[in-house]
Amino acid sequence: MDAVELGPDLESRVQGQDHQALRLWLRLLSCTTRVEGVIRKRLAQDFATTLPRFDLLAQLERHPQGLSMRELSKRLMVTGGNITGITDQLEAEGLVLRDAHPSDRRSFSVKLTPLGRRQFKRMASTHEQWVLELLGGWSAEQQEQVHGLLADLKQHLGALEAAAQQELQQPLKPSTKARTRRKQQA
Amino acid sequence: MDAVELGPDLESRVQGQDHQALRLWLRLLSCTTRVEGVIRKRLAQDFATTLPRFDLLAQLERHPQGLSMRELSKRLMVTGGNITGITDQLEAEGLVLRDAHPSDRRSFSVKLTPLGRRQFKRMASTHEQWVLELLGGWSAEQQEQVHGLLADLKQHLGALEAAAQQELQQPLKPSTKARTRRKQQA
Repeated sequence: MDAVELGPDLESRVQGQDHQALRLWLRLLSCTTRVEGVIRKRLAQDFATTLPRFDLLAQLERHPQGLSMRELSKRLMVTGGNITGITDQLEAEGLVLRDAHPSDRRSFSVKLTPLGRRQFKRMASTHEQWVLELLGGWSAEQQEQVHGLLADLKQHLGALEAAAQQELQQPLKPSTKARTRRKQQA
Repeated sequence: MDAVELGPDLESRVQGQDHQALRLWLRLLSCTTRVEGVIRKRLAQDFATTLPRFDLLAQLERHPQGLSMRELSKRLMVTGGNITGITDQLEAEGLVLRDAHPSDRRSFSVKLTPLGRRQFKRMASTHEQWVLELLGGWSAEQQEQVHGLLADLKQHLGALEAAAQQELQQPLKPSTKARTRRKQQA
């Protein structure tokens, strides 16, 4: 039944190389999601908190000079949180504060309070043990290897993003044709 | 200022090995999130759809016999979607249908309609090209390497989950002490 519906049209456009990349992406996504899932569950059980809250505190801990809401939303690595809502909650709990932004007086800069810093440090230490356990399927040498391979991927993604940015800034150059073609196919 | 607040207590518990695992996890998470972010954006621009919708259709495409809501929620790889809500939408658009479950007559099994299958195939082909482009920072050989390394991680995660499951089923065995200790630390 499947064979009738699929036909050779779309399937045959897919090369062997594509299948490898797709299989790899699905495995990458599922491994990351599983690790993330365990961390989400343990943060809820052990600290009654969520990953977006933890992630937001972690970003602030790395930037003691404070971050604007815009900078925060660029840096947050996990989905599922409304940044303004989370910041409001954390402020009400005395863990963060909003301060006048050093370079832009019209906007606010969010910072950890000393209490927020202490609470985060306590969670971060346990979180780090979880990560050590969860990634323990890799030897130190394998971890080094994956770290290096991900550096290559990161560089590639940076280059793609820079190219997309440049394309946006030159809206009438030939490169936009590819974009239009893609839209028409869709 | 930081040095005063941190003190040696929590920081000194962190070993060199931990830092490596944490750095690796943050890089893994950020690379995955960036790839996922591009895919989310393009799905919205080119197909006016979301990743959780795409992911749900993809799971159904892989399971033509249908999946129960429970099975679906276990298999979905991305967060941000309410499965019942998405299924309702997709059903209203004629892309999926709810059928009596083959083995459990009280529950429903969700399946793709022929229209849903065709729409998914069209998106999946473009999606696969995106993934090929995004993971193009790795050579075929590097992709093979990462795939193998992720297999090791996957096996480790499976073993951890099985152990946690077993611990839940034997609530009074000594292994629960570790869990209690973790709670007390928190």
